[in-house]
Amino acid sequence: MASPIASAALKARVKRPAMLKKLCRPEDMLHHFPNGSYIGWSGFTGVGYPKKIPTFLADHVEQNNLQGKLRYSLFVGASSGAETENRWATLDMIERRAPHQVGKAIAKGINEGRIHFFDKHLSMFPVDLVYGFYTKDRPTNKLDVVVVEASEIKEDGSIVPGASVGATPELLQLADKIIIEVNTAIPNFDGLHDITMTDLPPRRKPYLIMGVEDRIGTTSIPIDTDKVVGIVESDYKDQTSANTEADENSKAIAGHLIEFFEHEVRHGRLPANLLPLQSGIGNIANAVIGGLEHSNFKNLNVWTEVIQDTFLDLFDSGRLDFATATSVRFSPTGFDRFYDNWASYKDKLLLRSQQVSNSPEIIRRLGVIGMNTPVEVDIYAHANSTCVMGSRMLNGLGGSADFLRSAKYSIMHTPSTRPSKTDPHGVSCIVPMCTHVDQTEHDLDIVVTENGLADVRGLSPRERARVIIEKCAHPIYKPILLAYFEKAEAECLRKGMGHEPHMLWNAFDMHKALNDEGSMRLVKSW
Amino acid sequence: MASPIASAALKARVKRPAMLKKLCRPEDMLHHFPNGSYIGWSGFTGVGYPKKIPTFLADHVEQNNLQGKLRYSLFVGASSGAETENRWATLDMIERRAPHQVGKAIAKGINEGRIHFFDKHLSMFPVDLVYGFYTKDRPTNKLDVVVVEASEIKEDGSIVPGASVGATPELLQLADKIIIEVNTAIPNFDGLHDITMTDLPPRRKPYLIMGVEDRIGTTSIPIDTDKVVGIVESDYKDQTSANTEADENSKAIAGHLIEFFEHEVRHGRLPANLLPLQSGIGNIANAVIGGLEHSNFKNLNVWTEVIQDTFLDLFDSGRLDFATATSVRFSPTGFDRFYDNWASYKDKLLLRSQQVSNSPEIIRRLGVIGMNTPVEVDIYAHANSTCVMGSRMLNGLGGSADFLRSAKYSIMHTPSTRPSKTDPHGVSCIVPMCTHVDQTEHDLDIVVTENGLADVRGLSPRERARVIIEKCAHPIYKPILLAYFEKAEAECLRKGMGHEPHMLWNAFDMHKALNDEGSMRLVKSW
Repeated sequence: MASPIASAALKARVKRPAMLKKLCRPEDMLHHFPNGSYIGWSGFTGVGYPKKIPTFLADHVEQNNLQGKLRYSLFVGASSGAETENRWATLDMIERRAPHQVGKAIAKGINEGRIHFFDKHLSMFPVDLVYGFYTKDRPTNKLDVVVVEASEIKEDGSIVPGASVGATPELLQLADKIIIEVNTAIPNFDGLHDITMTDLPPRRKPYLIMGVEDRIGTTSIPIDTDKVVGIVESDYKDQTSANTEADENSKAIAGHLIEFFEHEVRHGRLPANLLPLQSGIGNIANAVIGGLEHSNFKNLNVWTEVIQDTFLDLFDSGRLDFATATSVRFSPTGFDRFYDNWASYKDKLLLRSQQVSNSPEIIRRLGVIGMNTPVEVDIYAHANSTCVMGSRMLNGLGGSADFLRSAKYSIMHTPSTRPSKTDPHGVSCIVPMCTHVDQTEHDLDIVVTENGLADVRGLSPRERARVIIEKCAHPIYKPILLAYFEKAEAECLRKGMGHEPHMLWNAFDMHKALNDEGSMRLVKSW
Repeated sequence: MASPIASAALKARVKRPAMLKKLCRPEDMLHHFPNGSYIGWSGFTGVGYPKKIPTFLADHVEQNNLQGKLRYSLFVGASSGAETENRWATLDMIERRAPHQVGKAIAKGINEGRIHFFDKHLSMFPVDLVYGFYTKDRPTNKLDVVVVEASEIKEDGSIVPGASVGATPELLQLADKIIIEVNTAIPNFDGLHDITMTDLPPRRKPYLIMGVEDRIGTTSIPIDTDKVVGIVESDYKDQTSANTEADENSKAIAGHLIEFFEHEVRHGRLPANLLPLQSGIGNIANAVIGGLEHSNFKNLNVWTEVIQDTFLDLFDSGRLDFATATSVRFSPTGFDRFYDNWASYKDKLLLRSQQVSNSPEIIRRLGVIGMNTPVEVDIYAHANSTCVMGSRMLNGLGGSADFLRSAKYSIMHTPSTRPSKTDPHGVSCIVPMCTHVDQTEHDLDIVVTENGLADVRGLSPRERARVIIEKCAHPIYKPILLAYFEKAEAECLRKGMGHEPHMLWNAFDMHKALNDEGSMRLVKSW
């Protein structure tokens, strides 16, 4: 079969002529994907992932009834697009996955035991990968094949990524073979990235970043061109979904937070333009960024993991000076807006590897304000970010602990309740004891719900419990949680073990009531 | 009352003549300590703490029956000497304490609810202090008075600490008044420290340390001399105790670890001289360092929190090139040995602030091998470092999470069992679910007991559980833990929530058996 002919669009994106000789069709690459391969993909939060090869492989499995016969260990910086990794999960093509994922079929595969998944701090995952920790039982210590999306290949063969950097530099460092999907349906992102590779200790160097806009790397990812086994032209856009709108609860949370920031500025603990903001994904995060748009704060900066639509509004309002992250994950209309106004945004944005965007070193140095949404928070300020009822994986830890562990302000925002099947307030997000702990009491400064904000800095556990219950719990659950705490406190103090009072055999009674009766409020009183 | 006359020894240590005019007796300082004061002390792990003033205040309370009438908020980098803070606790002189403590009376006060204690990552505590987080509800945002031990005062008024740096730089930054105890009973430590102060974001800078021996600061702590309200001559030595000897179990653990390091070197994941070692306190830590002394490793380096006696042996064996920490905590005979051979050790040692010794930035950059002992580890590799039965505080988090969260190798070593009152193996240190979580499953790479070493890198939770039970659990508890895991796995997978299988209502049954029957092995089978 003859090689495909390079389109003019592709030629414009591939500046190294020798590379065009490797142009091929996805089907030409099939033999690089035997069952059991260790595979890396570019991509982060559903943008910048490869599309043609994964889709071809899924079609191949589907058309030839190979479900369960081509299974791979798949490593991506964070989540990929649903039409790729989630479809792979549906077709039973994933044996092992790390460190984060999004998609119903993949979560189902994980929770039904077909997919071995481990979630790791997103800043640590690429380092551990380069250490060889995830390939240590393999003969080569390498990933067999790494498929990356590029918006340009430079003359030296280096790769200009698209809308995310993620773990692509390290995946490429560890690749035995490389396949590049050059995406001609997206703009050329050249100049939007700041790329650093990973050295091994004892030869690692500091990240000399002292402001959100600081550049310390190159604009493209260097690769060993001999490892490139094929180049594919891609014209599929990132399949993102619409943004989650802010609701009344999330607006109330944003209001509490902005009031808190004003308070901190007034007391000299924050500069007038705050400090670099980190904001997670979801409607509360959107409400907070939306709230800042209508606040009095100016010259704001963002040091975060993912930049979303609301940041475009904040740019347009003139309040945001600069934002840096490891991906721009806009909605389809957000991407249109971004591409149409490229010139006005391009000098205010920088995309870095997830090892840098989520680096504890830089987060601590810059004094980032970190904000995330948990599954549940307990009365002593531990938080569960990953496992419902201690066992069922949602998406993974992500960067939550990278930020909350090192931020100047470590903030958890959550609605005080969520609905169960039979009760609109069946699940309290404030619980006696988290059923799984991802963020410890030593990490969190602020817990905030629509009811109020608990500032737990410098408080002992028993003081924290009273403040969190009083400020954050839903009125339905306040007396229930207080009853737990007060009984635990009385019992434990009496026994001389009351630093952080718990009734261990009853700590999950609210979860049991949810499980057995359909609502946490139906817990038998303590 | 006339001022005391400066001894020749004191004059030799105070190079700034004006400072000698502030020479006073402890009783002259009493009026600086009204009830409710916020107080800082130098000190870390029971060395380098002030002795004269705290002892005088304790005598004053005792002699005048002022128990409970002079209560203070006390901030020290980590633990102080038992004859000071523990005696203060006995005399009910402590209202609030952070971030770490050692002593029976102080633990009793915390667990009976008389002392508000919070434990914080030791690297974060001094930063939060300078942010004003712990003094935010005070009119001045300051600590009222900070008492520090010095081994010299330089001509510019700056302070040369003794055997620890800890949080002293930041405590002094935040001090309203300063009292200096110049200790003439210890050698002058001039040249042994590398001192950095804390800037506020957005003006913080990188720690430009790329090797354990790198110096980035000054040899003494700059102070505002106008704040010094008194100088006291001290001739009390640090009251340390003897080292814990390695027992058979800890020697077996050390053996497993050294075998593991050799394995990693063989596979190219560690250099032949390993990477900087961090080692906690206790008999296992001593056995590991002792084991290295008799290994084939050479040119070792240490980046740790506390340097103990066994490091002197390692130096003397010629295997250790350089060690840096925030304190040297030797036994009384260890200190004699250290002081007698000062010339041979002084160029191989450097003491830094705890913010630097425990800095995630540097720990990650250097690729430190972090080793700590927990209360308990669970089958999914979460660890409890602080609270027995979820509620009773031992000493505090310390630097365990600073190191384990960012180390290249995050290692938890523990005996597989500890005795209960009635059963020499009544407490399994491997449990189904930790009753308190300080280190999460996302942090640990290796769990090791006398039975064996579980390497959980890259494993999903269910894989981790099988390896940890098989390699680490005591033979008595293997079938018990396996029964829990397999029943939880079957139930959770069936319900489609089997990522990290738990039976929440039975997760603490082993702890209940210990509580009710005196031994975890008497748990009713699942």
